[in-house]
Amino acid sequence: MKKLIVGQSGGPTSVINASLAGVYYEAKKVGFDKVYGMVNGIEGLLQDRMIDLDDYFSDKNNLELLKRTPSSFLGSCRFKLGNMKDNEKNYEKVFEILDKHGINSMIYIGGNDSMDTVESLSDYAILKKKKQNFIGVPKTIDNDLPITDHCPGFGSACKYIATTLREIIEDNNVYGNTKPTVAIVEIMGRHAGWLTSSAALAKDDTCEGVDAIYLPEIPFNVDTFVEETKELLKKKSNIVIAVSEGIKTEDDQFICELGDSNLLTDSFGHKELAGCAEILSKLLKEKLGVKTRSITLSTLQRAAAHLASKTDLDEAYHCGMKGAELAYKGESGKMIIMNRVSSDPYKIKYEVFDDIHKIANVEKKIPLEWIDVDNNNVKQELIDYLKPLIQGEVKQIYKDGLPQHIVLK
Amino acid sequence: MKKLIVGQSGGPTSVINASLAGVYYEAKKVGFDKVYGMVNGIEGLLQDRMIDLDDYFSDKNNLELLKRTPSSFLGSCRFKLGNMKDNEKNYEKVFEILDKHGINSMIYIGGNDSMDTVESLSDYAILKKKKQNFIGVPKTIDNDLPITDHCPGFGSACKYIATTLREIIEDNNVYGNTKPTVAIVEIMGRHAGWLTSSAALAKDDTCEGVDAIYLPEIPFNVDTFVEETKELLKKKSNIVIAVSEGIKTEDDQFICELGDSNLLTDSFGHKELAGCAEILSKLLKEKLGVKTRSITLSTLQRAAAHLASKTDLDEAYHCGMKGAELAYKGESGKMIIMNRVSSDPYKIKYEVFDDIHKIANVEKKIPLEWIDVDNNNVKQELIDYLKPLIQGEVKQIYKDGLPQHIVLK
Repeated sequence: MKKLIVGQSGGPTSVINASLAGVYYEAKKVGFDKVYGMVNGIEGLLQDRMIDLDDYFSDKNNLELLKRTPSSFLGSCRFKLGNMKDNEKNYEKVFEILDKHGINSMIYIGGNDSMDTVESLSDYAILKKKKQNFIGVPKTIDNDLPITDHCPGFGSACKYIATTLREIIEDNNVYGNTKPTVAIVEIMGRHAGWLTSSAALAKDDTCEGVDAIYLPEIPFNVDTFVEETKELLKKKSNIVIAVSEGIKTEDDQFICELGDSNLLTDSFGHKELAGCAEILSKLLKEKLGVKTRSITLSTLQRAAAHLASKTDLDEAYHCGMKGAELAYKGESGKMIIMNRVSSDPYKIKYEVFDDIHKIANVEKKIPLEWIDVDNNNVKQELIDYLKPLIQGEVKQIYKDGLPQHIVLK
Repeated sequence: MKKLIVGQSGGPTSVINASLAGVYYEAKKVGFDKVYGMVNGIEGLLQDRMIDLDDYFSDKNNLELLKRTPSSFLGSCRFKLGNMKDNEKNYEKVFEILDKHGINSMIYIGGNDSMDTVESLSDYAILKKKKQNFIGVPKTIDNDLPITDHCPGFGSACKYIATTLREIIEDNNVYGNTKPTVAIVEIMGRHAGWLTSSAALAKDDTCEGVDAIYLPEIPFNVDTFVEETKELLKKKSNIVIAVSEGIKTEDDQFICELGDSNLLTDSFGHKELAGCAEILSKLLKEKLGVKTRSITLSTLQRAAAHLASKTDLDEAYHCGMKGAELAYKGESGKMIIMNRVSSDPYKIKYEVFDDIHKIANVEKKIPLEWIDVDNNNVKQELIDYLKPLIQGEVKQIYKDGLPQHIVLK
């Protein structure tokens, strides 16, 4: 009797459930007798909260709904096990619960922090001669995991950003020369500008695209920003600017902090970022006397499953399948990665990365040579990298005018 | 030779271009030889800015793209002609330009202010014995035009709001009991709560829906709000609250204005003029010590054509067609309205309303008997009213992963 448990961790994405669907489907196929889901990740596992996925997904229609359901079906957590020495009790508790249910393998779907959990548990198992194995399946809208070409979840977020920017640009143009306007759109990404860079995809023959893109990889100067916008307004009346929530001054101060001294930190100690678009919008209104608007794309960037990229969803599903295969083989401390064979035609190879230590807690940023600093834009190389990831649409399942999802009861 | 000119005015919607498509299609069919579009509404007309719509839409594919393009293809304005006495020069200028091009009829697609323009021009033409006639085609996401059962543009905004709320609710649930969270979602509608009420549609067998809805029709008490949220948090950990941007205290003060006195000034010396969701979110964080998040749906409510309601789009198109018929007949000072014959099965009759004076500048609010004040929710009557309006999806035309639109060159 082989048993697998799978969990989801960190911020959700539009397609993290497609990875869960892939894990479940393939796990049953390769021969796991039971596939459990841990509720609220490792934090829920420590409280012995789990479900039998057969109860939901032996019905194939539900598996199709799962693929189209945003957020993490199993619930998530932001819990870190911490180092082994100081937290042995937690480590032992995990293995006690796995043993109690006769579980052989664990798959954890998540980003940097979650890969840290996979690494720690795998190391602990080897050191303490535990029998379980641990596999990581990547997920993050931020695309900041190293080694893998890109991450499941990122492409759908890009598609959402590019689509809504196109709509925002058209909306912003509506009064033409009769009313100059600047819209500043704030996009997620604390340290890496990958998501913000996807604003460049809005441009094509029929859409003029955004007028400037400000990325966290490049120091942000407030005065220069005002001057650059002033120059843009000399050429056209309606401007749309994409800014990353993580833009910082040369002194490493977040722009959003300029507006609020009362910042809280989240449970990992990250600063809570919000509001740089609003701050910059007020600044431009004051300095240039122009009508401005700030738009924050907010959690919809990671939750708008109705705009998921088919390429991304399929890749998320395949990463999940590959994870299940690997888990069944008894491999441990490894993560599924995607290796891009070519961009045109787009071709990906699913591979296994052996040394999860090199992935956990490392943040991949945009290569500087892909950024067109002088024009506040991105270079063609970056567009070529991004474009394949947003291709294809996922047919939603509608009922009574709204997309249908499946939720944990 | 019969010539028509059509314009778009006021804030755009996802389907205002479907009305334009309906006007063009039917105008050509009933016998107009020329159909012009005024660029940037009446303001552009006064500058003699117009295009021949044949240049774009004699190609039927472009007409299909037009139906799917958000914002106002012809551009818009927020220009009022003002009363005839003080602004005779402008009135005369309009007729001078119409005469110059031999234009017989004008259709104006818009909301309250635009109907005011239709009314004024029609009255002026009768009083001054001008030969042109003027017809209004309704448009507004706010649904605050009287007489007509509802307005084209409203249903698609509702579909966007209900769909994204479902995604926001699932995203907000992701940490379960491990982290109580309150998300406050700010929805458009300064004086009428129609759009905010559509948050109620998110609920079904698989989605628990929003936990509270605060409408501008009901006075808002900040202390009561904190108490009510505290009660909600006793029952469940993850709360989503929908608030109208227009909620006001009993003293008629907008909640978004309360921020002036309370909040910090940023380092540029500005007062933080936040939206009401942000103010309430900070308030709850302070009073209840809970993690909060504010989400402002912003212009996407009126621009997210990728989520348009097919019912709404078809109705917008038909209102445009009906407008063209009426214009051809030489009728004037009239507006197309929709009369609901029944909700289940849903049936609409397109009619003509003779007395545009009763429409211009009147705001229709939600009937109080449709609001469940005690439970911060809406009653079944309101849900039954809203539900038919979001039915059906519009097949988008995708290219390279993004929806295609047509824009004015």
